[in-house]
Amino acid sequence: MIARRHNRVEYLLGIDGGGTGCRAALADRAGRIIGRGKSGSANIMTDIETARANILSATGQALQEAGLDISATSAISAVLGLAGANVNNNGARLEKLLPFARAAVKSDAAIALQGALGDDDGTTVILGTGSVFITREKGHVRTIGGWGFRVSDLGGGARLGRDLLEEALLTHDGVHPSSALAEKTMAMFGNDPHRIVAFAHDARPNDFGTYAPLVFEYADKGDRLALLLIDRSVKTIEEALDAIMPPEQDRLCLIGGLGPLYTSRLSPKYRARLHPPLGDALSGAVKLAVELFAPEEADHG
Amino acid sequence: MIARRHNRVEYLLGIDGGGTGCRAALADRAGRIIGRGKSGSANIMTDIETARANILSATGQALQEAGLDISATSAISAVLGLAGANVNNNGARLEKLLPFARAAVKSDAAIALQGALGDDDGTTVILGTGSVFITREKGHVRTIGGWGFRVSDLGGGARLGRDLLEEALLTHDGVHPSSALAEKTMAMFGNDPHRIVAFAHDARPNDFGTYAPLVFEYADKGDRLALLLIDRSVKTIEEALDAIMPPEQDRLCLIGGLGPLYTSRLSPKYRARLHPPLGDALSGAVKLAVELFAPEEADHG
Repeated sequence: MIARRHNRVEYLLGIDGGGTGCRAALADRAGRIIGRGKSGSANIMTDIETARANILSATGQALQEAGLDISATSAISAVLGLAGANVNNNGARLEKLLPFARAAVKSDAAIALQGALGDDDGTTVILGTGSVFITREKGHVRTIGGWGFRVSDLGGGARLGRDLLEEALLTHDGVHPSSALAEKTMAMFGNDPHRIVAFAHDARPNDFGTYAPLVFEYADKGDRLALLLIDRSVKTIEEALDAIMPPEQDRLCLIGGLGPLYTSRLSPKYRARLHPPLGDALSGAVKLAVELFAPEEADHG
Repeated sequence: MIARRHNRVEYLLGIDGGGTGCRAALADRAGRIIGRGKSGSANIMTDIETARANILSATGQALQEAGLDISATSAISAVLGLAGANVNNNGARLEKLLPFARAAVKSDAAIALQGALGDDDGTTVILGTGSVFITREKGHVRTIGGWGFRVSDLGGGARLGRDLLEEALLTHDGVHPSSALAEKTMAMFGNDPHRIVAFAHDARPNDFGTYAPLVFEYADKGDRLALLLIDRSVKTIEEALDAIMPPEQDRLCLIGGLGPLYTSRLSPKYRARLHPPLGDALSGAVKLAVELFAPEEADHG
C-alpha cells in the first residue's frame, strides 16, 4: 500500500479528505506543523481525478505557508485519510497517481481513530453527516458501519434529518401526534407537504443533515418527537458499540459534528467510558505519517 | 379540472399511468371495453411531454384494437389516473395538452379506490413500490401517505427492500444476529458489503423493491429477520389505517403487488374487514369516465 519513489524523508504530510472538502497539514520530521491548506471535495469513490487535484491544491497551500517551493512536493511522505479508501482498490490507485516520495492512503476512520486516541486502545464513533465505528484493541483495528446514507450511517445527521421529515409528514397526515418540533419543521416548509417531497427528492445526505441539530435543540426542550428520534438513534449507536467495543475497554470518543451532542444522551454504561478526543482526524494523519515514515523521530519526539 | 372541446361523447377512455408504464382502456358509452393499449412511463412529475406521448401511444393502440381510426381521438372523453396529479398543477397542465374532447386528470389513488370499491364507502391501501392510503366516507375522499420513497411510502416494496439491505449490513457487521434471510441477501451480493453499497448508491425505488418479495417468502418460513421487517411494516400500515379508516367502516382493500402478501399479516381487527377488490385501477378510471361523461348511460348500465 506504500508507493516509494524517494528514500529521504524531508517533510511529512497529513491529508483529511472527504466529500465536502480536503485539509492538509505539513509537518517536519518530528511532526511539528509548519503549514496548512484546504480545498474542495476529495471523494475518491466518485471522482478520483478531482480528488487528486484538490489534494495537491491543499498541499500547495501548505507548502506555501511553510515558505517552501512547490518542487518540495517530491520530498513529501504523506498519509491520506479518505472515505472509500478500501473500496474497489481506490486507495492503491490514488497512491500511484500522487507525486509524493511516498504515500499511504488510509480510511477516514483510521486517521480519526489515531487523532482521537493516539496509540491507545479504545473506540471512536464518527458522528457527522454519516456514522462509522472504529475500535483498536491490542493493535488490532476493526471498523463497522459507515456504509452510506441509503442503507447505513445510523445515528448520523443525514439519517436523523431524514427521520425528522418523515415524522413531520406522518404528523401532517394525522398518523402520529403533533409536537412543537413537528410543527416547526412543517412551518419551515410553508406547511406544504409537497415542499418536503420536492426537497427530499433532490436532497443529498448533507442536505438532510442540516435538520439534525434542530432535533437536538428540541430534545433539550423535552419535545416528545425530538426525544423519540434521539432515543432511536442512540439505540442504534449503542447496539453498534455493544458489537464492537470490548466490555473491558475504557476509552470511548464520540467525534464529528454531532459527537458532542450525543455524549449526554448515552446510557450510563457508555457515558462512564467517554473521553474527549486528543486531537482531530488531520492531526491523526500527521501522527500516522510520522510513525510510518520517520519512526526514529517519533521515538524521540 | 375538465377541459371541454366537444359536447358529443362517443368513446370513453380510462388511463392508468405511472413511472413504470401506462395502460389504456377504451369503452363505449355504457362502459363496455372495446380496446386496450399499453406503453411506457407516464410520470407527469418528471417529464410531462413524455407522459403525454405515452398516453397517446397507449390510446392509439386501444383505438386500433377497437377498429377505430386515430381521428376518433377527438371524440374521446377520458379519465386519467396519474401519480402526482395534485402536485404543482401538473394535472391541470396535462389536461390542456391532450387532444381529447374532454379530459379529467385524477390521482392514481382515486382511480384505484374506484376500481377496488366502486361507489361504496371504504378504504383502499395501494401497496406496490410505494404506499398510499385512501378512504371514501359518505362521498368524502381523503388520502394520506404516498409522499415518496425517501420520506414516506412506509410498507411499500422499496422501503421494505431497503430495510432488508440495511439489516443485511448490520448482520454482516455483527450488530444484529444473523438469519437465513440475512445470509441469503449477503450471498446475492457475493457476501461483499461493498456490492450492496454500490447497488444502493444507484438504486431507484423500483430496484430496492425487487427485494421485497424475498422478505415475504422468508417470513412464511418463520425467518426471524423477515418477521421483524414485516411486523414493522404492518405496524406502519395499521397506524395509518387507525388514522384514516373510520371505526365503523367495514370495507378494506389491499391492492398493488404487495397487497395480497400483506392480507394474512394484518391484525384480526383489520383482517375482519378485508374485501377483495372489485377491479383494478384501470377499470376504476373507466368507471369514473362513465360517471363523469355519460352518467345517463351509467344509470341504465
